Amino acid sequence: MRMRIVVLAGGIGGARFLRGLRSAAPEADVTVIGNTGDDIHLFGLKVCPDLDTVMYTLGGGIDEEQGWGRRDESFRVKSELAAYGVGPEWFGLGDRDFATHIVRTQMLGAGYPLSAVTEALCTRWNPGVRLLPMSDDRVETHVAVTLDGERRVIHFQEYWVRLRASVDAEAVVPVGAEEAKPAPGVLQALAEADVILLPPSNPVVSIGTILAVPGIREAVASAAAPVVGLSPIVGGAPVRGMADKVLAAVGVESTAAAVARHYGAGLLDGWLVDTADAASAPEVEEAGIRCLAVPLMMTDTGATAAMARAALALAEEVRA
Amino acid sequence: MRMRIVVLAGGIGGARFLRGLRSAAPEADVTVIGNTGDDIHLFGLKVCPDLDTVMYTLGGGIDEEQGWGRRDESFRVKSELAAYGVGPEWFGLGDRDFATHIVRTQMLGAGYPLSAVTEALCTRWNPGVRLLPMSDDRVETHVAVTLDGERRVIHFQEYWVRLRASVDAEAVVPVGAEEAKPAPGVLQALAEADVILLPPSNPVVSIGTILAVPGIREAVASAAAPVVGLSPIVGGAPVRGMADKVLAAVGVESTAAAVARHYGAGLLDGWLVDTADAASAPEVEEAGIRCLAVPLMMTDTGATAAMARAALALAEEVRA
Repeated sequence: MRMRIVVLAGGIGGARFLRGLRSAAPEADVTVIGNTGDDIHLFGLKVCPDLDTVMYTLGGGIDEEQGWGRRDESFRVKSELAAYGVGPEWFGLGDRDFATHIVRTQMLGAGYPLSAVTEALCTRWNPGVRLLPMSDDRVETHVAVTLDGERRVIHFQEYWVRLRASVDAEAVVPVGAEEAKPAPGVLQALAEADVILLPPSNPVVSIGTILAVPGIREAVASAAAPVVGLSPIVGGAPVRGMADKVLAAVGVESTAAAVARHYGAGLLDGWLVDTADAASAPEVEEAGIRCLAVPLMMTDTGATAAMARAALALAEEVRA
Repeated sequence: MRMRIVVLAGGIGGARFLRGLRSAAPEADVTVIGNTGDDIHLFGLKVCPDLDTVMYTLGGGIDEEQGWGRRDESFRVKSELAAYGVGPEWFGLGDRDFATHIVRTQMLGAGYPLSAVTEALCTRWNPGVRLLPMSDDRVETHVAVTLDGERRVIHFQEYWVRLRASVDAEAVVPVGAEEAKPAPGVLQALAEADVILLPPSNPVVSIGTILAVPGIREAVASAAAPVVGLSPIVGGAPVRGMADKVLAAVGVESTAAAVARHYGAGLLDGWLVDTADAASAPEVEEAGIRCLAVPLMMTDTGATAAMARAALALAEEVRA
């Protein structure tokens, strides 16, 4: 039987890791539980950045350089919207990308749940994995910040894309998560998994949001499968993005060991840190999590596949 | 005081006539009551072809050659939608045009009526006229046809654009018109008009649909202002488009005189036919409608302005 691997994934980091995983384990049956907390309604359209990044990356449609959006993209629609005075201008929706959101919004409007819409979109992209949104219910991550001396709660995308996380995140709230239900297939996939992997996605706003949907954290923690994570922090800084900003909001240091302790031994069986952080392995192991140091820079698919192989090997070790 | 002119307009013909009218009477206060019967929902977006054609034409954004859509248009979104298997492919929505429909749909979704949305869109285009949809209520013209031996009722756009009116229209039904109310400002504009003009738009699916909204025909017929129309039929054939097909559906011959009689003396005070149809003027006059023959080919703005001047002169003649 094919090995069943379940991956909880955010956007760019999760998508790139998945590409390495598919290369490392081409025969595996991979289910991706995708973060939808950074979904946003723009121009009346439902935009799911993380689901799309996974879909485009694995389907060969991604802009490789920036890691999100479509390759060979143009911005005619956005420029026209701006001519109408309709924004936001800070969110880079390209023409090809717009088509995805138009199809999604039309199907949602016709009554299909997001999971069915995602499946339909994937019939075009053939990502080679089963991509499930964490929930069909609306969850939107909001961030509390102080701007010009005033406390405001803004959408995560505004914090991340418009402000480039340039101010402190005082709190991160996955609005709607408490009332959300896991999407069809999510709990079953976790229960039947042979291995569960947490790629080096953002521990707060990506994987943390997925785990905030009632039932998912419990399903991961109680799964028969070993759960192995890969540190998104290398040498005390996020490999990519600004994860340190949102880690601070939940009182977690930006170190590989602190993120492992944040997930906790109740969730994680194994943890991979970068060779630069090898010294922190004993601290992770003290917390009851088996820890190994391997190179964790996703410089290309080969390096990323090696990371995936190391994660699968660690899963076998902790299973035994 | 500025002369108040109200024009009932369809798409391409109406828009081009309006450009001539603005050139002929630059000081006039022009209100356009636009046909919305050819509106259609495509890809979950509300598309208003006639309103947009007027707006783009008077605002300088039209594709001059084809008479509809935006100039310098591209079709990236549509091509992506097709890659998702989402159609229809026969309706030519360009990227720039998509932006208009996205803004409109977003505003409608937020609760604004179509008249408010149209006004908002026009703040960008500055068409130099007040553009009112005939109604804020949904009206969609459907056409009964026989295809492969089966009687079907299809959307007017499918008949016009996909089938190119290649089969007979057995009936033309403005679905929803009976329950529709004139948009805010429509009846008042007609009541306060100094002149009411019917440009050479389609008498059935453009002007006929506007007149099918309860209250509008009565307001035109009972207006203090003279009502002057311009024949869309020259020499027994439509100047543009396939008006003969839908005229046949309502039992009207494709002649300048028959269209005048179709509108009737209860509605029309004056009627302009092309010089090629000068011989039919007595027949129109017998029906109680003052009729003059002038060149009616809208070859350029100058020729169209001359038509508008002739219509305004005829209005003054019948007023006196």
